[in-house]
Amino acid sequence: SLTILYLYHRIYMDYNATTPLEPEVIQAITKALHEAWGNPSSSYTAGVKAKAAIAQARENVARLVGGKPEDIIFTSGGTEANNLVFHSALEAYRESCRTAEQGGDSHHHRDNSRTSSAWPRPHLIISNVEHDSVRLTAEHLLKDAQADVTLVAVSKVTGRVEVEDVLTAVRPNTCLISIMMANNETGVMMPIRELCQRIRSVSGQRHHRILLHTDAAQAIGKVGVDARDLGVDYLTIVGHKFYAPRIGALYVNGPGSTTPLHPMMFGGGQERNFRPGYGWRPIPNAELVISNLPEYESHMLDTRKYLEERLQAVFGKERIHFNSHFPDSESLPNTCNVSILGPRLQGRKVLSSCRRLLASVGAACHTHRGDRPSHILLSCGIPEEVAANALRLSVGRGTSRADVDVVVEDLRNAVETLESLN
Amino acid sequence: SLTILYLYHRIYMDYNATTPLEPEVIQAITKALHEAWGNPSSSYTAGVKAKAAIAQARENVARLVGGKPEDIIFTSGGTEANNLVFHSALEAYRESCRTAEQGGDSHHHRDNSRTSSAWPRPHLIISNVEHDSVRLTAEHLLKDAQADVTLVAVSKVTGRVEVEDVLTAVRPNTCLISIMMANNETGVMMPIRELCQRIRSVSGQRHHRILLHTDAAQAIGKVGVDARDLGVDYLTIVGHKFYAPRIGALYVNGPGSTTPLHPMMFGGGQERNFRPGYGWRPIPNAELVISNLPEYESHMLDTRKYLEERLQAVFGKERIHFNSHFPDSESLPNTCNVSILGPRLQGRKVLSSCRRLLASVGAACHTHRGDRPSHILLSCGIPEEVAANALRLSVGRGTSRADVDVVVEDLRNAVETLESLN
Ligand SMILES: Cc1ncc(COP(=O)(O)O)c(C=O)c1O
Ligand SMILES: Cc1ncc(COP(=O)(O)O)c(C=O)c1O
Repeated sequence: SLTILYLYHRIYMDYNATTPLEPEVIQAITKALHEAWGNPSSSYTAGVKAKAAIAQARENVARLVGGKPEDIIFTSGGTEANNLVFHSALEAYRESCRTAEQGGDSHHHRDNSRTSSAWPRPHLIISNVEHDSVRLTAEHLLKDAQADVTLVAVSKVTGRVEVEDVLTAVRPNTCLISIMMANNETGVMMPIRELCQRIRSVSGQRHHRILLHTDAAQAIGKVGVDARDLGVDYLTIVGHKFYAPRIGALYVNGPGSTTPLHPMMFGGGQERNFRPGYGWRPIPNAELVISNLPEYESHMLDTRKYLEERLQAVFGKERIHFNSHFPDSESLPNTCNVSILGPRLQGRKVLSSCRRLLASVGAACHTHRGDRPSHILLSCGIPEEVAANALRLSVGRGTSRADVDVVVEDLRNAVETLESLN
Repeated sequence: SLTILYLYHRIYMDYNATTPLEPEVIQAITKALHEAWGNPSSSYTAGVKAKAAIAQARENVARLVGGKPEDIIFTSGGTEANNLVFHSALEAYRESCRTAEQGGDSHHHRDNSRTSSAWPRPHLIISNVEHDSVRLTAEHLLKDAQADVTLVAVSKVTGRVEVEDVLTAVRPNTCLISIMMANNETGVMMPIRELCQRIRSVSGQRHHRILLHTDAAQAIGKVGVDARDLGVDYLTIVGHKFYAPRIGALYVNGPGSTTPLHPMMFGGGQERNFRPGYGWRPIPNAELVISNLPEYESHMLDTRKYLEERLQAVFGKERIHFNSHFPDSESLPNTCNVSILGPRLQGRKVLSSCRRLLASVGAACHTHRGDRPSHILLSCGIPEEVAANALRLSVGRGTSRADVDVVVEDLRNAVETLESLN
């Protein structure tokens, strides 16, 4: 398979971190580098081709997430898309405060500072298991006194954010709720659709809207994603999670008209001024994902289930704890977060004793945290000593049952070796 | 040549807008897409290769602009790099105001808004011929009441910003001076080195520094650029102007230590948290530029001079006005901004009557401005009726004398056709 070829017979099970590129994607990029290098606003061939490639990609990405082409703003990646949402929501809140003031609310005086001191600071709600590009953005705004922030804890029973808990956190000054669609470590899916419905019913009588954002980085390419059906205002799209390059996009339901969108950068007018500059690229393989999703999804589910069976068969049910199994929660088809129980079997140790398996113990951006167990797993109620042994095994479209057999055997050897050390 | 091959025998003279990719660059990218798709912070091969490629590119880009590897922050492009400078300068100013307050300046009270109202708003200086990614960023900050802005006009005699004029514009609250290294329409080089020296001598006794930025988008790959010799704090690098892809970098003299750098985005810690997320890529061809620059430079200069000679020879000296010739100013080797004088010879008309030449009348982001002459040329003192006829012909490394002959012949035919229309 593709993975074996590039990784010198190691088996890659870290598709939630990043994916290799689809061969068709590499071809599309190489072709574009040769032929479509021009400025898309220029009239010569290399520019016209660039423009056409972008328009086509925009249409396909829109279909991929159930939006219209004009709802898609290409960005440099998921981090930028997430940051853009927070920036926009705050600007929109400030604007609505100014509008309310000008509407004659005379006891609120206008000053020239960025947030009128007469209005409460905007309030943001996120979950406690968001990706760093959401969590650290919210933390920065809190620290900089630009916003109040509530972190809603996921349930230790279901591993997901419960709608009631979010509703309880809503305040009169809440302007944005950002909850990921699926968690990158556990694969647990959050109840975004129900959340949007419930929030819409409380959002009516305010001078500003509660904007709803979901970071769908981990969901796209694994399960069906339909932004309009979900009812979100913003949805984050991350190319390198679905075999595209390191680029991103933000779905915005009617950018600048139905839904506020305020640029973080200023420049040459690209992306209708919402994201100027050339530091983004179209995502070339949305079409491929759309047409193959049911097949990919069932293949990954089958592979993951086989992996879980084999792990239990080889290590015994009592030694295997699935950190991604929560009753009553749906989850991604490809993610198996598992701990092999035992005193010397910390995730990192097990992985470094493996000769074939390539995986991680959690989100890559946390690798500097050394041996502390994943805060995501702890938040989900996984006991400390279980979380310490966690392996995040995430399979991909190309992972086969034969790969699984090799990996499980590899793990068996690694565990044996670790347990035989003095 | 390369250009002819891809453009179906049209001749590309719009290298200041964007360049085709160097074949070695396409190879390097394709190789990286195949082999180095991994997360650079991961330990498996595809990640290790990505990390190594980035480190190598960083070292080469540093050498390209005369900095240390740790001075290079990769960004998604020039627009982002320029925006990052303005964001950083403002944050640094706010920080220095807060520090001064805490230092016991008791009549300045601290509040929680972003700019303490007791301190004057920060003041920014730019020229009136900057790229939109500088000009519109400054305009936005002005409109949003975050900063005061002075636009220093270029001299109508030299086409460049004069150091004395910048010094006159400096105020006690000036925190950033951003002047491009070479103008994209005229190719005129600005006196950045002298400016830095003069500013350093007035900047000493302030509670905040005057930060110096130059956007070197148009200079890199055409003339030697040495950030330390220039004395700037920040320098913008734009890949697609020197045969690399649409990516960018910012040189910062000691980011976060000697020179303030405040991220615009928050996320997974890439680029030492100065620019998190994966929405940037290393620039793969700095090494190539370094080793070939003298050759490229003299080749482009020769080609451009030959173009100017041929234009004068074919149309007659009195019908040709070079909008990029200013006494006492240095300019880029490759840029010939020229007007063929005559009532029916507006730039856009001439270009659309050409069958071989591909060029533009000015910066691409201004194409929506219809038939108004370039504000850059008007700012440089070019009379309205001359500026209306301007053609920006910018040659590249691959442009030959034979290409020039074809283009001049093409222009001769176009002009003949236009003048024969009743
Ligand atoms: C849930 C989630 N959101 C956002 C991102 C960041 O996207 P990017 O790497 O394109 O900045 C990632 C992965 O890195 C992710 O897993
Ligand atoms: C002087 C100058 N600065 C900045 C830019 C913008 O860079 P980018 O297109 O990478 O955003 C350009 C060209 O587009 C330019 O000519």
